[in-house]
Amino acid sequence: MVRDMTDRSPARADRTEVIRQAALDLALEVGFNRLSIEAVAARAGVGKHTIYRRWPSKGALFMDAVLSVNPPALEYPDTGDVEADLRTQVHAAIDLVGRPPFGPLYRALLGEAQHDPAIAAAVNERFIAPQTQRTIARLEAARDQGQIAEEFDLELAVDMWSGPLYYRFLITQEPITHEHADRVLAALLAGMRPRS
Amino acid sequence: MVRDMTDRSPARADRTEVIRQAALDLALEVGFNRLSIEAVAARAGVGKHTIYRRWPSKGALFMDAVLSVNPPALEYPDTGDVEADLRTQVHAAIDLVGRPPFGPLYRALLGEAQHDPAIAAAVNERFIAPQTQRTIARLEAARDQGQIAEEFDLELAVDMWSGPLYYRFLITQEPITHEHADRVLAALLAGMRPRS
Repeated sequence: MVRDMTDRSPARADRTEVIRQAALDLALEVGFNRLSIEAVAARAGVGKHTIYRRWPSKGALFMDAVLSVNPPALEYPDTGDVEADLRTQVHAAIDLVGRPPFGPLYRALLGEAQHDPAIAAAVNERFIAPQTQRTIARLEAARDQGQIAEEFDLELAVDMWSGPLYYRFLITQEPITHEHADRVLAALLAGMRPRS
Repeated sequence: MVRDMTDRSPARADRTEVIRQAALDLALEVGFNRLSIEAVAARAGVGKHTIYRRWPSKGALFMDAVLSVNPPALEYPDTGDVEADLRTQVHAAIDLVGRPPFGPLYRALLGEAQHDPAIAAAVNERFIAPQTQRTIARLEAARDQGQIAEEFDLELAVDMWSGPLYYRFLITQEPITHEHADRVLAALLAGMRPRS
């Protein structure tokens, strides 16, 4: 039986998506360390070779599965008040990263990024860099409106804005709350305001 | 042959140290993901059961081995100038964490902390919390000397001081440099100075 080529791509894409979803479901159930390709294959109803044809390792499959989740867009509003707008955006980010299902999956992915430079590079390219660009664009607008000092380095501002939240998430593993982010933001902006 | 009990403890301690060192050496050679208890046992010249009697898992062995390394003390001087003293301390911390052998081992340990809450708790108890206490003590002295505003929350200051450096180390994985830390510190202190 000859299969129509136009049929094959969607079927292949569907199967890829089924395997990704099986990997995410299992990771949430048993944790990344106990996740196995065998179990993902069984859950997805495919053979192990079907998985290895697409991804070279468990880490590569997991990375692709997590980064293919489409979280709600973390865009910044522009109401003209930079503090209010950063606050709005970070509350949405915290609700995403601090809670299941995305939170524990993202934590595990950042864990693997410490063992595998290819995973770290992919996380940066597909998740961190676009977010950094959005943050810098919003800060540039604030600088143009005189809400941030001309001389303040906006790349440094990104490190100082994201860093304290990731420090809680990955190091102390205390809850990241709206209230904590608000306090980081107020302290950060206190150092960024134009000198009068 | 009856062994003297007073001999046994040092011998046991020596063997524990030999196993820890074998785990660290192998982790640096092959990476944490390819580290195996079998290989550690072979390198240390002991049986696998000797390892499993001491540590329940590869992660537990690795955690104990990394946290048993005695890095140079990361104490703060107190010259009366808080910015200079934080700078001196952070340069030493960066030289430790940013370079082999401790740097890649610590990175791998923080990776495992994302998969295993027991490892995260141990890292906090044995490494992060003592450092946090030292930082807060130095900031309190600065506050007493009028170099930091009375109302500034010093626990928040720790998040904002450590966070940007860990963000580089774990997320963007750009080099953490003395110069970057100096810029973080200047921006942070700009927001912490007493209002005149």
